[in-house]
Amino acid sequence: MRVVTMGEMMIRFMPKNNLRFEQATEFEAYYGGDESIVAVSLAKFGLDARYVTKLPVNPLGQTAVNKLREQGVDTSYIVRGGERMGLNFYENGASVRASNVVYDRKYSAISAAEPDEFDFDGIFGDADWFHVAGITPAISPEAAVLVEAAMKAAKKHGVTVSVDLNYRSKLWSPEEAQAVMIPLMQYVDVCIGNEEDAEKVLGFKPANTDITKGELDIEAYKEVFVQLKEKFGFKYIGSTLRESYSASDNGWSALIYDGNEFYRSKKYDIHLVDRGGGGASFAAGMIYGLLNKMSLADTCEFATAASALKQTITGDFNLATLDEVKRLAGGDASGRVQR
Amino acid sequence: MRVVTMGEMMIRFMPKNNLRFEQATEFEAYYGGDESIVAVSLAKFGLDARYVTKLPVNPLGQTAVNKLREQGVDTSYIVRGGERMGLNFYENGASVRASNVVYDRKYSAISAAEPDEFDFDGIFGDADWFHVAGITPAISPEAAVLVEAAMKAAKKHGVTVSVDLNYRSKLWSPEEAQAVMIPLMQYVDVCIGNEEDAEKVLGFKPANTDITKGELDIEAYKEVFVQLKEKFGFKYIGSTLRESYSASDNGWSALIYDGNEFYRSKKYDIHLVDRGGGGASFAAGMIYGLLNKMSLADTCEFATAASALKQTITGDFNLATLDEVKRLAGGDASGRVQR
Amino acid sequence: MRVVTMGEMMIRFMPKNNLRFEQATEFEAYYGGDESIVAVSLAKFGLDARYVTKLPVNPLGQTAVNKLREQGVDTSYIVRGGERMGLNFYENGASVRASNVVYDRKYSAISAAEPDEFDFDGIFGDADWFHVAGITPAISPEAAVLVEAAMKAAKKHGVTVSVDLNYRSKLWSPEEAQAVMIPLMQYVDVCIGNEEDAEKVLGFKPANTDITKGELDIEAYKEVFVQLKEKFGFKYIGSTLRESYSASDNGWSALIYDGNEFYRSKKYDIHLVDRGGGGASFAAGMIYGLLNKMSLADTCEFATAASALKQTITGDFNLATLDEVKRLAGGDASGRVQR
Amino acid sequence: MRVVTMGEMMIRFMPKNNLRFEQATEFEAYYGGDESIVAVSLAKFGLDARYVTKLPVNPLGQTAVNKLREQGVDTSYIVRGGERMGLNFYENGASVRASNVVYDRKYSAISAAEPDEFDFDGIFGDADWFHVAGITPAISPEAAVLVEAAMKAAKKHGVTVSVDLNYRSKLWSPEEAQAVMIPLMQYVDVCIGNEEDAEKVLGFKPANTDITKGELDIEAYKEVFVQLKEKFGFKYIGSTLRESYSASDNGWSALIYDGNEFYRSKKYDIHLVDRGGGGASFAAGMIYGLLNKMSLADTCEFATAASALKQTITGDFNLATLDEVKRLAGGDASGRVQR
Amino acid sequence: MRVVTMGEMMIRFMPKNNLRFEQATEFEAYYGGDESIVAVSLAKFGLDARYVTKLPVNPLGQTAVNKLREQGVDTSYIVRGGERMGLNFYENGASVRASNVVYDRKYSAISAAEPDEFDFDGIFGDADWFHVAGITPAISPEAAVLVEAAMKAAKKHGVTVSVDLNYRSKLWSPEEAQAVMIPLMQYVDVCIGNEEDAEKVLGFKPANTDITKGELDIEAYKEVFVQLKEKFGFKYIGSTLRESYSASDNGWSALIYDGNEFYRSKKYDIHLVDRGGGGASFAAGMIYGLLNKMSLADTCEFATAASALKQTITGDFNLATLDEVKRLAGGDASGRVQR
Amino acid sequence: MRVVTMGEMMIRFMPKNNLRFEQATEFEAYYGGDESIVAVSLAKFGLDARYVTKLPVNPLGQTAVNKLREQGVDTSYIVRGGERMGLNFYENGASVRASNVVYDRKYSAISAAEPDEFDFDGIFGDADWFHVAGITPAISPEAAVLVEAAMKAAKKHGVTVSVDLNYRSKLWSPEEAQAVMIPLMQYVDVCIGNEEDAEKVLGFKPANTDITKGELDIEAYKEVFVQLKEKFGFKYIGSTLRESYSASDNGWSALIYDGNEFYRSKKYDIHLVDRGGGGASFAAGMIYGLLNKMSLADTCEFATAASALKQTITGDFNLATLDEVKRLAGGDASGRVQR
Repeated sequence: MRVVTMGEMMIRFMPKNNLRFEQATEFEAYYGGDESIVAVSLAKFGLDARYVTKLPVNPLGQTAVNKLREQGVDTSYIVRGGERMGLNFYENGASVRASNVVYDRKYSAISAAEPDEFDFDGIFGDADWFHVAGITPAISPEAAVLVEAAMKAAKKHGVTVSVDLNYRSKLWSPEEAQAVMIPLMQYVDVCIGNEEDAEKVLGFKPANTDITKGELDIEAYKEVFVQLKEKFGFKYIGSTLRESYSASDNGWSALIYDGNEFYRSKKYDIHLVDRGGGGASFAAGMIYGLLNKMSLADTCEFATAASALKQTITGDFNLATLDEVKRLAGGDASGRVQR
Repeated sequence: MRVVTMGEMMIRFMPKNNLRFEQATEFEAYYGGDESIVAVSLAKFGLDARYVTKLPVNPLGQTAVNKLREQGVDTSYIVRGGERMGLNFYENGASVRASNVVYDRKYSAISAAEPDEFDFDGIFGDADWFHVAGITPAISPEAAVLVEAAMKAAKKHGVTVSVDLNYRSKLWSPEEAQAVMIPLMQYVDVCIGNEEDAEKVLGFKPANTDITKGELDIEAYKEVFVQLKEKFGFKYIGSTLRESYSASDNGWSALIYDGNEFYRSKKYDIHLVDRGGGGASFAAGMIYGLLNKMSLADTCEFATAASALKQTITGDFNLATLDEVKRLAGGDASGRVQR
Repeated sequence: MRVVTMGEMMIRFMPKNNLRFEQATEFEAYYGGDESIVAVSLAKFGLDARYVTKLPVNPLGQTAVNKLREQGVDTSYIVRGGERMGLNFYENGASVRASNVVYDRKYSAISAAEPDEFDFDGIFGDADWFHVAGITPAISPEAAVLVEAAMKAAKKHGVTVSVDLNYRSKLWSPEEAQAVMIPLMQYVDVCIGNEEDAEKVLGFKPANTDITKGELDIEAYKEVFVQLKEKFGFKYIGSTLRESYSASDNGWSALIYDGNEFYRSKKYDIHLVDRGGGGASFAAGMIYGLLNKMSLADTCEFATAASALKQTITGDFNLATLDEVKRLAGGDASGRVQR
Repeated sequence: MRVVTMGEMMIRFMPKNNLRFEQATEFEAYYGGDESIVAVSLAKFGLDARYVTKLPVNPLGQTAVNKLREQGVDTSYIVRGGERMGLNFYENGASVRASNVVYDRKYSAISAAEPDEFDFDGIFGDADWFHVAGITPAISPEAAVLVEAAMKAAKKHGVTVSVDLNYRSKLWSPEEAQAVMIPLMQYVDVCIGNEEDAEKVLGFKPANTDITKGELDIEAYKEVFVQLKEKFGFKYIGSTLRESYSASDNGWSALIYDGNEFYRSKKYDIHLVDRGGGGASFAAGMIYGLLNKMSLADTCEFATAASALKQTITGDFNLATLDEVKRLAGGDASGRVQR
Repeated sequence: MRVVTMGEMMIRFMPKNNLRFEQATEFEAYYGGDESIVAVSLAKFGLDARYVTKLPVNPLGQTAVNKLREQGVDTSYIVRGGERMGLNFYENGASVRASNVVYDRKYSAISAAEPDEFDFDGIFGDADWFHVAGITPAISPEAAVLVEAAMKAAKKHGVTVSVDLNYRSKLWSPEEAQAVMIPLMQYVDVCIGNEEDAEKVLGFKPANTDITKGELDIEAYKEVFVQLKEKFGFKYIGSTLRESYSASDNGWSALIYDGNEFYRSKKYDIHLVDRGGGGASFAAGMIYGLLNKMSLADTCEFATAASALKQTITGDFNLATLDEVKRLAGGDASGRVQR
Repeated sequence: MRVVTMGEMMIRFMPKNNLRFEQATEFEAYYGGDESIVAVSLAKFGLDARYVTKLPVNPLGQTAVNKLREQGVDTSYIVRGGERMGLNFYENGASVRASNVVYDRKYSAISAAEPDEFDFDGIFGDADWFHVAGITPAISPEAAVLVEAAMKAAKKHGVTVSVDLNYRSKLWSPEEAQAVMIPLMQYVDVCIGNEEDAEKVLGFKPANTDITKGELDIEAYKEVFVQLKEKFGFKYIGSTLRESYSASDNGWSALIYDGNEFYRSKKYDIHLVDRGGGGASFAAGMIYGLLNKMSLADTCEFATAASALKQTITGDFNLATLDEVKRLAGGDASGRVQR
């Protein structure tokens, strides 16, 4: 089974030792970006994963390729050229202090790429699934065009399409998002998102839920899922349910709907190591479960466990193994050492 | 609005990676000291802040000046000379293991400084507020004389005076503290302290409160505040209320009294990054609130939020911005990332 | 009072900054091993502690000696020679992600050592107590022979013998363990173990206790203790009671039985810094208490506090001082700084 | 004496521990940029130094301000706004391996700034000297316009103008450079440059000098200086003379001409710690010497010593003190410790 | 063009910050081993490179695979299983202090592997060149058998065979080496070695050369090369010529012989960053040159430059790019930055 | 053979990564001090070494004891008590930039210790040699009294006495030094010193030697040695001969005189890792040679090699082994790895 993902790969610069930006004399650097995380997760789980993007011809661009190869991702369709890598500067919060992001991703290679730079027939000819996040069309009008071209090509080759809505307020407004994203939904089979996305990206608001209060109204979520299903005809809809107790501790669970039943996973209380990539790891887990024809419940527990594990791992990529995900999904969250 | 603070600046040497002293091959070094933290906080919030001390003529003394300038503090009245910097060696505790401090601050430049080394007319001529902590008169008899001279000069220029009682058992006994501090109270408008200080420094004990049990008797606090008001005529009295669950996790709130009403802030459960500077950051927040004519409640919430944030930041200085303090005081403690 | 311990000293390589094995470009290295931890703890508490092992003639073997000398342990009976140091690679878990150990201790010097390489008369001639863990006979058949020879020699010199059962599933099966360990019990006065050991090593299962659920059935433990006492005639039996909430947070208490009464210590909720050496530190605390004729309750609280403190300290050795252990056992777990 | 400098401040990200880009998981971050280095050097030497630029309204922009304030530079005329900080990624070479730079400075705040954003009357009203490098007009056409406006304003206020030609092949071609720079020379009193600049920026080639061979033809330099003097009427011309033996070791000396005499400094063989900022530190030294009316020889030795010291200091800024520069210029290059 | 290499991959643990073993609390970890370095170099230069070994089924073995994939090496014929990774502990010397190696590579997976575990037809079916070092047959009798089987299989598929003699005195004696290696020479087309190897491995001693004196007798080398050619019929013979001035600084050049002419490269004086992998990088360079039909001189200069660059790069792998090697081989050793 | 040394143990705080003081956020900490280095060297070489000092009762004082025990030094006569540890802040120079020391050693425990705190009969009763450096009497008048008492006690027990003159201009003037040191010379058998000491401490100036020029006039040294011998009757006189090419590279050799002949060692050109402890390591080597009845030449070469090796090792202690010193003294300075 081969999964293709496409998007922007960024370097995340994070002050070392959890310092504030102004204290930092050293930055940890992580290569990531939503769809690359999905590709790495799936390669780690044993699927064939292909990642498509455009990266500049410089050592940073090459390192991005290397990081993907290291994890066994197929990088042969990555286009090289363009101006620069997208960057983001990330200050890790702690306890009552929120994390802080300075985006510096404008003018990146992929944001200016054009559809005909990519060999979509090669890319999708032997593929089973295509996944993209809502961040990618948000980075530029050119990128929105590119995503649509990719979705069309995927559909032409009979490839299942999933999207992770992933609203980014620093990239676009709800109005802009909806103008681009709603038309794309016709190509989408599986829709994934967290709590803000349905509202900002597709205009559906879960009623009565105020995430800053750490309260979740599952019934409202379900209502929105039913409406999404009706309007866009998605086969599966999934959402992670993050409860932000503080910058250090979060509750984490998920809800999946197959148009028929709902399944809500068990909830993990996670002491966060690095919350980045939680959503993308859930997407990867859900794709893995669906491609492997797991039950709705197993898919949801697998995806939730995978994404919970990610948040205990430093960096963007989910380096949890298939065995570890299965062990956690199976119920052992005691963290005991095997000696 | 210009605030002057005066005291001792120290270097804190802390074993890296939370190691014990005997394991440490590397020490993190932080420049701080109670009143310098207040000055930095206020400069960060946008006030004019001037810090007065004496520092040796060597690269460590110069670095102390640089660290203040970096934060926009006016260092032009700092006197240079004397024998050495005050130092403290700080072993950070964790969970059930307490932190451990080895003071090495004797013979410091400021501890031997004399009043006529300082241009008090220049220092206070354009100032609105003067703040000093009870640590400073504790470091030496000369320093106690210096503090009194400064308070008198401040009063001569019509400057509001605040004091943070801040008892240090490694510097003096309750008897010594009271002999020095009680006579100074005549110059003080605003009195700040934590739970032990009123007792050790001024001889007023909050009844029935045993801090090692993590229990707080707010009524006893209030009683003491009323007595302090009666005896010394303070305009405002404030106290932080630390509940030490462990070396890693503390409850944090505060109580302020204006001679009329009491206001107790909301309580934060903080996973501590660096508890140093919590009290001084509260003092800075309270000064900021009062200078900006915030209500009693807003002042208390602002000061509590500011000092809660400090304890999530490495080092002595409170690097929280005005916006961050306001956001937390306004109720968002979810630690969510803004992306 | 002189305590002898004997076993294997290993280097533990742990990815720095809590990274996964595959992310690690740097490893922290800790010298340890169960019985060496006991020796170091006791030396730290002020007893004469002698550690016996065999170490290769290379700089790593010499460093192991140095680390013991640093803590005041008598290393004069350590034999030098053999092929290699035992190693273990340890990936520290976090929250829902379990820690991961790769043992690489086969062919170590001590695993191939023979009894006549050791001067047991010198070793035990002036000793009061001998302690060994169940890990040591597990590392090789030769080591099992060596442990028996040592126990016999200890008994010949009238030395009290304690054993920490410490089952290691990566070293042997329950069947193998029981075949070796049960015959050794005739030499043992004090038997220490955690929740799995009685079952795997001696064949006694605490009923109804499923440690992955974080539930403890104290009554079942007591039943097993009574049976052990009956079968092997131990003078004291002790067990730590770990409750694994996650890889980051554990409950920790202990139960001691003197054939007459049971005492269960207070329970600590520990935010783990390094859980390694918790069991060995309990053993050291129990030996200290018994040698100093503390009451059953005081011994149990002392040993539990000592081992709780260990888990807040990086590395294998318990660097807590006698004062710190007594302070915590005495009830102050607030983690407050003394300034 | 007050010196104004203007230009772009960048963050330099350098792989830690001298690793290659692809090996780097951590980057050291240095704030710098040619003219800011000059300002810091001069502030360090005790002059009033003012730095003018435009920086984005984010924590990185604020940190740039802080780093300047730390060194006592006047930042009150820095404009805040614009898109981003200029960045450069710098891989430090070693021995036969050359250093490698990836510029990512396009679209920076200062590159898009317009003259009327700056209060040139305030900036130059109380100034004695204005310094700018040829890098600044190279970053964008807007910046070239800005530099010309600044030079004109400086001249209007009777301020001496110096320029460091500093050709950057990654920013513009010789043709582009000459089109912009030659017309600016009418405002310039003091012209500084290294060995390539006269040729690329002003079209004057030192004959017979092949820097890759580590050979210097001083006579050719002198010839070019005479021609520059004739054509542009500079009062002083200075050039550093770098001999690149390898990426780790360089020869370093300088030549100054006052239209009358030449002076060549002694030559230092430097084991490089960080060669960045060598040229700017020479400029600062030359400005310091001329403003303090040192002789031609003393100016040249002072500037050469200052810039030699810089190259033994990590980071962009020259943190050498006036005393250290004078001691080295005075002849003690033995590196002995004073104890 | 596809090159196959086969051997043992090890983890090198090196005390951080150039400390001695006994000082080290942290170790840097590098994955390497002679033939893997050759494979990585060639992949970096753009050839298809396949590496064959056996690695244990644990996270360390998987990481070894990942490190190769990261560099684009084909790992699909690596066999998984066996007991452990080979390790070596490496203390980096400095100046007059020599480096120090503690091997811990016995019982490694590849040392116990058998020929029929490898699919030699798949491995060599599409290959042009096979390279192995003399270290590999030295690690165990089984490995010697494996190397012979591989050489025979390579020859069967018409693949060119090169060997790097690489004598290791800690693995075998000259007598053992010669007994194994001389019979293997019948399969070898290209023989590479440094100054000790011809003597220890094949019994040919370069006369009058005492490497501890840093003197080289090129005539003696040539004489030995002629004899080797005569006895074994090699098509090409190459040797690096290391002159050890100290542990920090070495001279580095090479000599190649095609049975007809000799070519000696230019000599580099290298300030060593990490001398590990110098010899293997020369082998890779020589293979690259010969496969690309470079002249004898160009091959020798290319290989020498490649291996000189390696010694300025941390870790085992030669991360120099084709461009960098060509630039250095072309004569620019000035280490200047391109900006 | 048992050697006693006595003096002050200090912690040296050195900015990490060779940064300047003002850049340092982390400091490396090394425990050392002249006579403790001698004791550690001798213990390392296999002699019984006893170190005598006074250290405060706090974790820093205890760590000093531990560091000595780690190396096998007898610490049983160390007195505990007093105010503080001596400290020094050390900024490591590089190339043309000199190192910089800020002493903060006043008021240390040993500086205020009195003779009757020490059990001199126990200390010297079983000793063969007593060594002290001229730094110790320099730290305070009390310490000068203590050194005299120790020398007298040593003589009473027939112990050979050596002194390393070691002038420290930051501790006393030549006049003060001579007033204290000349009377002590009556107890001294072996006098060691470097190039400045004879002049500053004993008033004998080697003619025509200007160390800042890196020139040595051996004849002048010899003349001074002859005069010292005549005046004080020393049995042996030794001096290291440091040639400071830069802060990074030094020449290093030594001259020894037995009243009869002179021997000058070979000269090492050392790329310095840490020059601290070079002189003390020479003293240790000379004591070792004399105690082992090596010839004058062998003693001088051994001591020179030992002290050359020290300067390639980080920290104060000379961690070179006896084998390493002998190998270097025997002529192999090539720094080659043994594999």
